Amino acid sequence: MRYSQLLLPTTKEVPAEAEVISHQLLLRGGFIRKLAAGIYTFLPLGLRVLRKVEAIVREEMDRAGAQEILMPMVQPGDLWMESGRWQQYGPELLRFRDRGDRDCCLSPTAEEVVTDLARRELRSYRQLPANLYHIQTKYRDEMRPRFGLMRCREFIMKDAYSFDADDAGASVSYEKMRVAYNRVFTRFGLDYRMVEADSGSIGGSYSHEFMVLADAGEDTLALCRDCDWAANVEKAAVAPPEAASGEAPAELTRVATPGKKKVESVAEFLGVTPQKIIKTMIFRADEGFAAALVRGDREVETVKLKNLLGATEVEGLSEDEVWAGLRLPVGSIGPVGLEGREDIRIVADSEVMAMVNAVAGANEQGFHYTGVNPGRDFSPHATGDLRRIAPGDPCPRCGGEVYFREGIEVGHIFKLGTKYSEAMNACFQDAEGQLKPFIMGCYGIGVSRILAACIEQNHDDNGIIFPLPLAPFQAILLNLGLEDETLCAAADSLYAALQDAGIEVLYDDRDERPGAKFKDADLLGIPFRLTVGKTFAKEGKVELRDRKSGETAALPPEEAVAEVKRRIAAGLAL
Amino acid sequence: MRYSQLLLPTTKEVPAEAEVISHQLLLRGGFIRKLAAGIYTFLPLGLRVLRKVEAIVREEMDRAGAQEILMPMVQPGDLWMESGRWQQYGPELLRFRDRGDRDCCLSPTAEEVVTDLARRELRSYRQLPANLYHIQTKYRDEMRPRFGLMRCREFIMKDAYSFDADDAGASVSYEKMRVAYNRVFTRFGLDYRMVEADSGSIGGSYSHEFMVLADAGEDTLALCRDCDWAANVEKAAVAPPEAASGEAPAELTRVATPGKKKVESVAEFLGVTPQKIIKTMIFRADEGFAAALVRGDREVETVKLKNLLGATEVEGLSEDEVWAGLRLPVGSIGPVGLEGREDIRIVADSEVMAMVNAVAGANEQGFHYTGVNPGRDFSPHATGDLRRIAPGDPCPRCGGEVYFREGIEVGHIFKLGTKYSEAMNACFQDAEGQLKPFIMGCYGIGVSRILAACIEQNHDDNGIIFPLPLAPFQAILLNLGLEDETLCAAADSLYAALQDAGIEVLYDDRDERPGAKFKDADLLGIPFRLTVGKTFAKEGKVELRDRKSGETAALPPEEAVAEVKRRIAAGLAL
Repeated sequence: MRYSQLLLPTTKEVPAEAEVISHQLLLRGGFIRKLAAGIYTFLPLGLRVLRKVEAIVREEMDRAGAQEILMPMVQPGDLWMESGRWQQYGPELLRFRDRGDRDCCLSPTAEEVVTDLARRELRSYRQLPANLYHIQTKYRDEMRPRFGLMRCREFIMKDAYSFDADDAGASVSYEKMRVAYNRVFTRFGLDYRMVEADSGSIGGSYSHEFMVLADAGEDTLALCRDCDWAANVEKAAVAPPEAASGEAPAELTRVATPGKKKVESVAEFLGVTPQKIIKTMIFRADEGFAAALVRGDREVETVKLKNLLGATEVEGLSEDEVWAGLRLPVGSIGPVGLEGREDIRIVADSEVMAMVNAVAGANEQGFHYTGVNPGRDFSPHATGDLRRIAPGDPCPRCGGEVYFREGIEVGHIFKLGTKYSEAMNACFQDAEGQLKPFIMGCYGIGVSRILAACIEQNHDDNGIIFPLPLAPFQAILLNLGLEDETLCAAADSLYAALQDAGIEVLYDDRDERPGAKFKDADLLGIPFRLTVGKTFAKEGKVELRDRKSGETAALPPEEAVAEVKRRIAAGLAL
Repeated sequence: MRYSQLLLPTTKEVPAEAEVISHQLLLRGGFIRKLAAGIYTFLPLGLRVLRKVEAIVREEMDRAGAQEILMPMVQPGDLWMESGRWQQYGPELLRFRDRGDRDCCLSPTAEEVVTDLARRELRSYRQLPANLYHIQTKYRDEMRPRFGLMRCREFIMKDAYSFDADDAGASVSYEKMRVAYNRVFTRFGLDYRMVEADSGSIGGSYSHEFMVLADAGEDTLALCRDCDWAANVEKAAVAPPEAASGEAPAELTRVATPGKKKVESVAEFLGVTPQKIIKTMIFRADEGFAAALVRGDREVETVKLKNLLGATEVEGLSEDEVWAGLRLPVGSIGPVGLEGREDIRIVADSEVMAMVNAVAGANEQGFHYTGVNPGRDFSPHATGDLRRIAPGDPCPRCGGEVYFREGIEVGHIFKLGTKYSEAMNACFQDAEGQLKPFIMGCYGIGVSRILAACIEQNHDDNGIIFPLPLAPFQAILLNLGLEDETLCAAADSLYAALQDAGIEVLYDDRDERPGAKFKDADLLGIPFRLTVGKTFAKEGKVELRDRKSGETAALPPEEAVAEVKRRIAAGLAL
């Protein structure tokens, strides 16, 4: 492709609207343009990357035995009412009425549509297992779309749905997708981790996320230094608490702690460590209130709290909101005496239940209890894993040391079970002629989001550094001698030779200064740069430069072609 | 691909909802399934055909120098207000408000979005010409979607938009698309015609449609037996009228024609030919009324009438509506004396103006005038080409004989001129630094509609007969000896050999009777059928059958593979 004939509007200025580096570089490199908040047009270069992502996803889905179909973007509301999500799904689901006054929505995902298809077309156990996928535009009406392709309203997703006759089959289907996803992300050339994940609003019992590691990630991952355990911190189980100490229970004593509200100041004032303090945090959980208890040096993980409560939504409250709603003084709240109240549920982290002679708020401004012993002095409504894992914690699998990384979610696989098939009465006939609901799984990849994640992970001060498998072009050829017939002839013939060798090459034949051409080549992040310039005039050699390492070599044209071809073959081998 | 592992639910029953053959066969062959009125899911086989259509379109667009981008499905209302189409476009434009209370619509086409992109990114004449296209889902909220993929609400379209600095450039861009489109439809293997067309609501000055010939076509085409002139009848210009006869003008005379209303009965009653009668038809044109005059043996072409009047909408009226609106008696209406009325515009076909001593209604029930002479007895507000061309008319280009065919519109190319660029102030800087509006063109192909058109044209009583370039698979291999190890081994090895030869083969390995396999093979319309059955058991030969001609040959397996490969190479050569 000749640069002069391509709509590839690069810019020097960092666009003011772009907060994260991938958004900046996608705009500056002319990959995308904004049409409206969270809605982008893909220009030719952006589309080329998108197509590479799609091709790898498609190959690996097909290899895993999934079948590609294409489900519509506009979906009937009826099906969403059947599944119950018409009510449950928030305002991100864009609902409208069509000309015939029928409820419709724009697809944010396709569980309902594919379950409807399955109940019509997969009638016998002989047709199972089946895995149907499509790569289709999705729409989620985000309140605050941001970060370019990271959190869009209109985006492209690959979503697959598996249908099995029994749990064992569903596990096999899930495992096939786990393998396929690992192949996909490995083939992308990205540094990623598969982590245990919360199932969230999709529902289901078991799931993994695929995270591209990057500093700007919206998610925090807990990883083990010694084994391959990894989990989203939302989900990361903590190792079981240490056994209770042999300390003899002391008497429950009310003490004044004037002006001491934070864990550290209460601990210092009372001459104990924060590990001795029971921290009581108040949340709104759906329509009611909850008091979550964790040890003083721990944090409450709200996703765990939500799951423990079986709530749809959990939200932290300000001091004023707690006072207004419960007449409890933040800084002096504790579980003792709270059990009797009907307006609040008490849930405790397992670790709290092993504490002896702890300190907790006395529910009166400036007073705490010492000698608090769970079980004797209070009994929570529920106990479980409630605290957020922390760096340095022992790995729940091997006991090794946990550390944190930031990640961008680009894939998510779920065991759905019968959530949708039961709600929508989607059944098949088993070998005995009995009707049974499908056991389902669903599997997503954020196709357009991969572009953002890829760039967040792979860039430097000069621009993007595309991994070879996702690069819009494999090589860029700079002609620096537009006014020199010999150099032009050499560049033209090198362009032809690269094309003949099957190399995807962008030929910078523009009437621009060398500096501008070098800058754009760096910005676009194309892996191999070939320059026909002074060195060719002097020695008949072209310069080959690796975008990532910065290494250069001067080679005769035919050797340069062979070398690029070799490096591409090596770089694309899985 | 193994049939047993494919979601390919064929049915014997003709679905009651499907009126046209393509809709029936697409459903029966398991290519598509209905999700809602005018909204379909593509199953694996349907998607395969769709991808073949897309691939050919993409190759020819790229060859013609167009650049592929991807514009969003959700578009901001602001841009449509700028172009004026927010008001002009009918209820087919699905409008809604997003979460931020902004006006949005689902894209039925993308002139506004691409013009907005061009005015931002194509700033200099040096960047022109440019042609940007995408292949994207579209939505038109049809009141009565019907005929399956023929008239959907959600469908896939390729739409391209060219931007030029001047008219000459725009003509070159248009010509490139004309050539590309002819290549596309030729490569599809369809019998099609390029015809002169009306520009319709897209606007612009000049356009051609690409029509797949088929009996179920929604459009009527006028074609010449002697030259390659062809036009949509809506648009087809008629040859200029014959010169007026030398007859001396007679006196205008009011005569009683009791009970005679139709042209034929008035003509018979007065002893003249219908060619002597001026037929006066009343229409509602936007907010007003129009009387359209044509010779008694002619029909009014409403699209021509609309263009002559400069109206947006033209609609025929019932006798009661005419009486209610104008107090004129249908059957006795004529132009004489009508000119003075301000509530009605009179427009006459050119041919009427050459009539001498004609008969026309006297605007009184049961009375007509004889001796009517246009110009003397009445003067229309406008005259022009108003009549619908008829079979047997002389070709307007060469004078040859015109005949009619039915066609399905699958492509449309337009010279838009500056309609959108002026409305949206989309300008570039010319060589002198002056701002000038782009000269635009737009070019559509109904990608998903091609499936319907292809089948309407290519089927028989047993099912579809795909042209090779669009077939979901090139060959289908039937294993008729599932219980015979030798036959299974032969079929398996033939399957492998076909795949190794690069042939797209569907392997029918299902546990079904031979009759069912033959029937499905015919229904699916795959060009080459290979059967491993009795002939193989006896003579070691497989049967090769051509779906279109029905010809069969018995060949050793390796020769069968070679023969299929040869026929595919021949069939795909352009």
